[in-house]
Amino acid sequence: MKIGILNITSYTGLELFRMLSKHPKVEIVSVTGRSGIGKSLSSFLSNKTLTDIEITSKINQNVDLIFSCLPHKTSAETLYDFISKDIPVIDLSADFRIKNPNTYEKWYEITHPYPNLLELAIYGLSEINREKIKTAKLVANPGCYSTSIILPLFPIISNNIVNENTSIIIDSKSGVSGSGRTPSLSNHFSEINENLIPYSLEGHRHLPEIEQEINQKNTNIPVTFVPQVLPITRGIISCCYVTLKKDLNLKSLEEKQKLVNSILEKFYKNEPFITIINKPPTMKNVQGTNSCLIYPKIDNRTGILILISAIDNLIKGASGQAIQNMNIMFGFNEKLGLNTIPIYP
Amino acid sequence: MKIGILNITSYTGLELFRMLSKHPKVEIVSVTGRSGIGKSLSSFLSNKTLTDIEITSKINQNVDLIFSCLPHKTSAETLYDFISKDIPVIDLSADFRIKNPNTYEKWYEITHPYPNLLELAIYGLSEINREKIKTAKLVANPGCYSTSIILPLFPIISNNIVNENTSIIIDSKSGVSGSGRTPSLSNHFSEINENLIPYSLEGHRHLPEIEQEINQKNTNIPVTFVPQVLPITRGIISCCYVTLKKDLNLKSLEEKQKLVNSILEKFYKNEPFITIINKPPTMKNVQGTNSCLIYPKIDNRTGILILISAIDNLIKGASGQAIQNMNIMFGFNEKLGLNTIPIYP
Amino acid sequence: MKIGILNITSYTGLELFRMLSKHPKVEIVSVTGRSGIGKSLSSFLSNKTLTDIEITSKINQNVDLIFSCLPHKTSAETLYDFISKDIPVIDLSADFRIKNPNTYEKWYEITHPYPNLLELAIYGLSEINREKIKTAKLVANPGCYSTSIILPLFPIISNNIVNENTSIIIDSKSGVSGSGRTPSLSNHFSEINENLIPYSLEGHRHLPEIEQEINQKNTNIPVTFVPQVLPITRGIISCCYVTLKKDLNLKSLEEKQKLVNSILEKFYKNEPFITIINKPPTMKNVQGTNSCLIYPKIDNRTGILILISAIDNLIKGASGQAIQNMNIMFGFNEKLGLNTIPIYP
Amino acid sequence: MKIGILNITSYTGLELFRMLSKHPKVEIVSVTGRSGIGKSLSSFLSNKTLTDIEITSKINQNVDLIFSCLPHKTSAETLYDFISKDIPVIDLSADFRIKNPNTYEKWYEITHPYPNLLELAIYGLSEINREKIKTAKLVANPGCYSTSIILPLFPIISNNIVNENTSIIIDSKSGVSGSGRTPSLSNHFSEINENLIPYSLEGHRHLPEIEQEINQKNTNIPVTFVPQVLPITRGIISCCYVTLKKDLNLKSLEEKQKLVNSILEKFYKNEPFITIINKPPTMKNVQGTNSCLIYPKIDNRTGILILISAIDNLIKGASGQAIQNMNIMFGFNEKLGLNTIPIYP
Repeated sequence: MKIGILNITSYTGLELFRMLSKHPKVEIVSVTGRSGIGKSLSSFLSNKTLTDIEITSKINQNVDLIFSCLPHKTSAETLYDFISKDIPVIDLSADFRIKNPNTYEKWYEITHPYPNLLELAIYGLSEINREKIKTAKLVANPGCYSTSIILPLFPIISNNIVNENTSIIIDSKSGVSGSGRTPSLSNHFSEINENLIPYSLEGHRHLPEIEQEINQKNTNIPVTFVPQVLPITRGIISCCYVTLKKDLNLKSLEEKQKLVNSILEKFYKNEPFITIINKPPTMKNVQGTNSCLIYPKIDNRTGILILISAIDNLIKGASGQAIQNMNIMFGFNEKLGLNTIPIYP
Repeated sequence: MKIGILNITSYTGLELFRMLSKHPKVEIVSVTGRSGIGKSLSSFLSNKTLTDIEITSKINQNVDLIFSCLPHKTSAETLYDFISKDIPVIDLSADFRIKNPNTYEKWYEITHPYPNLLELAIYGLSEINREKIKTAKLVANPGCYSTSIILPLFPIISNNIVNENTSIIIDSKSGVSGSGRTPSLSNHFSEINENLIPYSLEGHRHLPEIEQEINQKNTNIPVTFVPQVLPITRGIISCCYVTLKKDLNLKSLEEKQKLVNSILEKFYKNEPFITIINKPPTMKNVQGTNSCLIYPKIDNRTGILILISAIDNLIKGASGQAIQNMNIMFGFNEKLGLNTIPIYP
Repeated sequence: MKIGILNITSYTGLELFRMLSKHPKVEIVSVTGRSGIGKSLSSFLSNKTLTDIEITSKINQNVDLIFSCLPHKTSAETLYDFISKDIPVIDLSADFRIKNPNTYEKWYEITHPYPNLLELAIYGLSEINREKIKTAKLVANPGCYSTSIILPLFPIISNNIVNENTSIIIDSKSGVSGSGRTPSLSNHFSEINENLIPYSLEGHRHLPEIEQEINQKNTNIPVTFVPQVLPITRGIISCCYVTLKKDLNLKSLEEKQKLVNSILEKFYKNEPFITIINKPPTMKNVQGTNSCLIYPKIDNRTGILILISAIDNLIKGASGQAIQNMNIMFGFNEKLGLNTIPIYP
Repeated sequence: MKIGILNITSYTGLELFRMLSKHPKVEIVSVTGRSGIGKSLSSFLSNKTLTDIEITSKINQNVDLIFSCLPHKTSAETLYDFISKDIPVIDLSADFRIKNPNTYEKWYEITHPYPNLLELAIYGLSEINREKIKTAKLVANPGCYSTSIILPLFPIISNNIVNENTSIIIDSKSGVSGSGRTPSLSNHFSEINENLIPYSLEGHRHLPEIEQEINQKNTNIPVTFVPQVLPITRGIISCCYVTLKKDLNLKSLEEKQKLVNSILEKFYKNEPFITIINKPPTMKNVQGTNSCLIYPKIDNRTGILILISAIDNLIKGASGQAIQNMNIMFGFNEKLGLNTIPIYP
């Protein structure tokens, strides 16, 4: 199958290239860049790569699928032509994640360039929307924080055990690569190193997609979300603090813990990339993999349900999930190209 | 004034030495170590120090004040003699922080060696217990996490605006130096670097002192506490998520924000080391200082009060606060030896 | 083919497991550990692995090849039985690298347990000793520093262009994982982070194997070697400073540069894992790969030949090269299991 | 004494401010910035500072001394007015370091704006040029690499024990803060973290000042210099590899080691900031101090003299040495404001 990648010189683009190079069913035939145009990928990376290819300004080959690693707005604008020609598209930007164009406009402070395409788009959280993704032509790949948050919360909320009058608290910590490759003071080594930076307390742009997706089953649970930048390159750990419904208070801690475990284990039992674990995950447990680890814990003093999830933000939080979605769309084994063990140490 | 330091070769001991060396009123006359006995501090540090001194196995001079940087249990056992001789003591271990010896036994899994000394001890959170510290002979210097958590929460809880039926959620992130200098897999560079490690979800030992101190004014608010190790050496950032009382719901977000700001600003208005700030603090804002920065923020979507605090765990979270307590005990200007600007970058 | 791994719970053992799990010709059937005995590898790593297996105290299956990740001395002692039974062995320890047992004794301060096995052993620097490795039963996998140093120097020295009266200067920088997983103050995060530590200036244990291998062609060039620990987990960069023979002084800088480039390019032209590059390599160019990048540069002011090499110490410097040697020994395509692109960023 | 600082919002400017705030003889009365104009320093740093002051676009007070933290060219252009008015100046840029304007033009690729001022300028390496600095009106503060290199080499070369026909090899490793605060891909966290980057092998701009200063005593020894960026914020370690004169070959290693030690110890015996040590220095031995540690070691296998030096690049390599020069110029105790112990850990 022939693949084109828009903006391969981004971190998510290079990660797509790295992982797709080991995928037995695809061939990358054309790649564009915002930098490095005219260079070969091998020279860009200063190392031999398995397949080499020139970075061009436009997709210059027929392709069976386009991945877009462009920033939002430019992504929708560039993808329009491919969508019009009925070429399947997986968009790693935020442009097609939010169903309501007014919500998009409010959070991204631009008018959506192609609002009529929104209803075509499927939110590409593979485990939750697999059936719709199978027939999708336009997949909106989820945000990295969103993936780490929706995966633990969706089954719990959908099982109607969460107190709807209390905000879920989400305290997330992300590596720096999540903010991309464009230099700024907020990713300057001397500013990030030995630091921890809480940010976007006025409202992070992943909030609307998180609320849209966790509340699919007629709930309306509000979310308090505090993202923080860690002095690491890759990985997200999200701690979600959930108040359970009052009628669960009759149950013992052990019963609550069993209930929560059984909900998660049942929901994810056949999923190759989701593991429910019995101790807190660390970044090193997931770096280099498409895994999401989920640790559910009823606090033994307060009864609060703590859900800690870990992903590699560039893989399950971006390029890996994009490949998983491609595998679903094209009927491949879902693990193809994604079957890796964590890099450790 | 003549000072003795027990276990100077710990991270908190060396930080005490570094800071006291610039203090105009004191002279360090005797220091002990668990390692490095017989060496001079200059050779231990491979650099000239302002004053040099030999590391010995026992305090071998008359002193006016003892700081203990020993581990718990050993600390109480070693301090007993000094306390018996009426020598003022500041203990950086956990041995005298918890009023109830049964609570101590439950959390530290040992019987307290001198439970009858507990009523002598003053919990040395300088800003909150200043009056008692002035006349104390035995100061229990607070835990690092505890300092970062009690300082933002105490004024808020004491003003009766917190919903007592809902757990306060505390998500704290600490640098590695908090766990001391003894090597273990949990502080091995290759395990910590590029990682984030949530731990002690069964209950961290700072919990009993946090609950004891925040609930001094007849409240009984439960706390859910998730500590995490960051790949940095120094610093703690704690995010406290507080549900306000229902009757505050009548107020607008702006009114709630003003109320919270005014409580904190009033409580800390004359404090040299506490600053209420209007954007989230970072580790770099406090490293190398005795400051605690507090950012209060009413979430504009959920009304939850988010309190983010930052300290240097080895200074305000340990040795700096110990010096501040010494200044209070001996009637010195409270800023002596502590008047520093953050190391940046 | 059935594989056994001794001490899989070391960093090199786990890296062998990670990489062999993707190798199409092998099956890992038995693994031992110095820790984690009785656990499954999946639980040890807190993540699903492609194949799972229990960690045992002894190899408990018939195997076609043994990899040893044991420390020196224990490795030779444990391997003796396998070697006696004619089972092929690849030893990642230092025990069989040095031909002269007296030299071994001098540097490792122990008597070699099986000196008579030394003549059986082939020094497993794949590109240089490939022909001997093909028929070897006992391969001594090279040290990590040694690999990064011998690869650039061997072709240059063997071409007789190096001044034999002047020491070659080697300034190497290594990630912390090179010193293994056992905790010590020298790998404590708070000691390594924000630091750089030169060490072993009295003589590093890789020196004898470096001198043995670079001087195979009747030279006797002395080496000054300064290793340093970097605050990173993986990777080695070695800077080798070489004084060329006086008669080369007649040549222009351009001619010298061409000569050096042509020697290296000719020597390594068919090698899949060696790349001669035209700008300095970085760690990120090699992390996650079995590559060695070599940058040759004639200093345009002094005529000194600077050779900068980069490897991933756990892959080309240990487990990857061990797999490469296995591929050579068993007639597999040399790239099997090793065909990866650098992890970036 | 009244101080003005040009471009205080640079890393060297903020470090000057931090250190001068503790200096008993000075008052900072006016500061300019390339960013943050109109803000107070307290708000810029998000913390209370000892003295607060507004960042302006021009020096707006009478001052007794100007420090310039501007980039080269802009610095000379801005300082011209102050120099014309006979106001003493310490320039942290490279503009006045190189005596020969043609050399400056060659390396900095611009024509020097005020070449006639060059003969006024004193190269401010405090320990070496102290007598000239005492009466200087224009001090060119040395480069950070240069400081770490000239301090160990100057006494050795001046004692005529170095072989003049062999290049000295200098392999230096610097923290990222040395390249300043302006964001670029070369200081992006995701690019630097877990990396080591050799650069400027065509010739680094500190080379001409190094060669100018080490060869003051009628030598002409060439230097091979390879700088590298480390994933740390602060600190430089330089390894200098020196071939001694042939007639020293008659001496034993012990005699050579004694000779070298005695030269260095004699030269630096009264210096408060230079320590000759007997084991390799680390970054942590100097961070936060104005120290330069020097470890001299005759390689016991090759006779090469290895000199390893360590400094904090922002202190002894920039702002600290600038303050030391100020102390010399104004007759203050040279340790004023600089008398600190390393930050550890």
